Amino acid sequence: MKDFSFNMPSEIVIGEGKINEIAEYVLEKGKNCFLVVDPYFCANGFADEIIMLLAKSGISTTLFSDVKPNPDCREVDEGARVCKEAKCDVILAVGGGSAIDSGKAIGVVARNGGSSWDYVYKTDRAAREIVETIPLLAIPTTAGTGTEATQFAVLSNPNLHEKGTIINNIIFPDYAIIDPQVMKSMPSNLTALTGIDALAHCIEAFLANIGTPYSKMIAAEGIKTIIKALPEAYANGNNMSARKSMAWGSCLGGIAIGHAGVGLPHALGQPVGGIVNAPHGGSVAACLPVVIEFSFMSSFDLFAGLSEYFDPSVSSLSLYARAEKSSELVRRFFKYLDCEVKFSDYGMQEKDIDKATEVVFGGYLGDLNNHPRIANVDDVKALYKKCL
Amino acid sequence: MKDFSFNMPSEIVIGEGKINEIAEYVLEKGKNCFLVVDPYFCANGFADEIIMLLAKSGISTTLFSDVKPNPDCREVDEGARVCKEAKCDVILAVGGGSAIDSGKAIGVVARNGGSSWDYVYKTDRAAREIVETIPLLAIPTTAGTGTEATQFAVLSNPNLHEKGTIINNIIFPDYAIIDPQVMKSMPSNLTALTGIDALAHCIEAFLANIGTPYSKMIAAEGIKTIIKALPEAYANGNNMSARKSMAWGSCLGGIAIGHAGVGLPHALGQPVGGIVNAPHGGSVAACLPVVIEFSFMSSFDLFAGLSEYFDPSVSSLSLYARAEKSSELVRRFFKYLDCEVKFSDYGMQEKDIDKATEVVFGGYLGDLNNHPRIANVDDVKALYKKCL
Repeated sequence: MKDFSFNMPSEIVIGEGKINEIAEYVLEKGKNCFLVVDPYFCANGFADEIIMLLAKSGISTTLFSDVKPNPDCREVDEGARVCKEAKCDVILAVGGGSAIDSGKAIGVVARNGGSSWDYVYKTDRAAREIVETIPLLAIPTTAGTGTEATQFAVLSNPNLHEKGTIINNIIFPDYAIIDPQVMKSMPSNLTALTGIDALAHCIEAFLANIGTPYSKMIAAEGIKTIIKALPEAYANGNNMSARKSMAWGSCLGGIAIGHAGVGLPHALGQPVGGIVNAPHGGSVAACLPVVIEFSFMSSFDLFAGLSEYFDPSVSSLSLYARAEKSSELVRRFFKYLDCEVKFSDYGMQEKDIDKATEVVFGGYLGDLNNHPRIANVDDVKALYKKCL
Repeated sequence: MKDFSFNMPSEIVIGEGKINEIAEYVLEKGKNCFLVVDPYFCANGFADEIIMLLAKSGISTTLFSDVKPNPDCREVDEGARVCKEAKCDVILAVGGGSAIDSGKAIGVVARNGGSSWDYVYKTDRAAREIVETIPLLAIPTTAGTGTEATQFAVLSNPNLHEKGTIINNIIFPDYAIIDPQVMKSMPSNLTALTGIDALAHCIEAFLANIGTPYSKMIAAEGIKTIIKALPEAYANGNNMSARKSMAWGSCLGGIAIGHAGVGLPHALGQPVGGIVNAPHGGSVAACLPVVIEFSFMSSFDLFAGLSEYFDPSVSSLSLYARAEKSSELVRRFFKYLDCEVKFSDYGMQEKDIDKATEVVFGGYLGDLNNHPRIANVDDVKALYKKCL
């Protein structure tokens, strides 16, 4: 067993109807709340509901909904300015990954100054020091990103055409309040795609070279949980038990990548999201089975273990045969979720491969090296071709 | 899946030789250290080594070693007085459960006043409020209690002849520095008995009625880890890989009972410790197989699962047969650790049964009710008789 360490200080609360108790949790941290939400929740009235719930307990709220997928660092900075001006002492972020990541970054900028981009981790310069932040509560509305349980905030910088991540234990949410009822209205294709993102987090962390006994335990539990719950949640979005299990699986995925990182599937999928605007879960779904097929020889043990989570009956097969099965088993799982997708389904063309490959080696080298089979330029190009 | 929550904010660091880096971790919290150690470590020079390591980094140390098994609340109060007078800003606790629990309680009393016994959880009165505490680092020197990763501090009150527990998230250690080299010199019988205590924590949390998906994941991982590592660590104390795995298994056991509590084996074993001064691990070892035999009918699923951790080949048996096997498998495991013990080995006699039973129902009713088969007075007496 190798040396390792872990730290996940967020308090996680999972339960049906927990959203109705949100004021109690907020009050533990402050009375002047900065509410960060996806704009969709302003349109459908959910933001107003939350503001009313908070008001009943004497909490005043400043609403902020300038949140886009891959939050724009300039919007985050503007959010921080408003938050500081309103003297908010607690942040409540409600939404998918973007709202929660915005909430994390807003707290940092409001308390430490500068621009959110200063705090982004870069290989070529030190990130600005974070001395303190504003207490944060996160309510995820999808079961996918797991950001409610990570020390990451992913931002984009439209001026530089770059994405970057703030990585700091100080931005773990104080509370993650995970209520499956909030996820009930997710359409089935969003359930499938966000669920596959969560599954990919677990699988990539399970395979990760920097994985530890802690991250492997978390990742394995996430894989098992999602394999069982995602088809049920997809087939019947009103199945609250499956929704709750998916929420737990997604949270496990967040903890897993928080301690072991992601690997080749995310390294290939992310650039495609930038080039053709594919949904994040879709771009991961398009390459995960192909990447597993490419990688299983690198560690029969790991991939044989993966196969057994999908189908325990393979245990009678040889180690080689079990490992070889893993790609097929993942593909079949995606089939029933109607997610046998390809990059070309999202508009990617053969001519985009060189550009995507460049982005992989420019921005995702760490993820590439965290995967058990390390892909070179030719491998990446061949993989993209296979996923088109 | 039921609703649940979890929180384990301690940062856990596991690695060979980590003890040599202890000053770096202490310095993150303070420069004036209150060092709480088992008296044994004063005698063998280990306390001096630590003081030297800290001094090299400019940390001044106040040494406190009035630590007994089941820390005496009066000694803890005296420790708090010394700690406060020396204006210590960080506590480093090195030892088995007693030193670490003392360190937890000393921080509470030094910062909030009164006596440590005021903060003990009681069913008939509210524990005194804990507003703050002193940052705490814990270095476990056995792989057993898991207290380095819990919110518990067990104390005894010799005036009242009672044991009690402070239960508060504020007393989670800030850091647990777990170094298997520190455990290398443990004699093999202590390795076995402390290891069995850790295994019992995992098994009891795995079976616990108040268990959650989180605690079950942790407990299951602990069981699997300890089954593999304990025999190796017992047979060869210099096997650093096995020692490290045992340290991890013990830590998992702490996290598991921190979230799911213990059950009938600890409820039966603890009183015997008080009556005849049996070692804690021994008193648990004496009753665990018997308790499992008594309990397996209450949940075939749970006990069948337990059997499969000990021997995956039972998976071909019927559910009933798998569950039935669990007691035998645990007994066989203890045999190879030379721990097929009985309460009478520690001097308990049939005439002590009534008194022990009284203590169970007076002080361990919560643990009793947390076990899948709830024992009544006659059951408890019969179980004691069987374990004599």
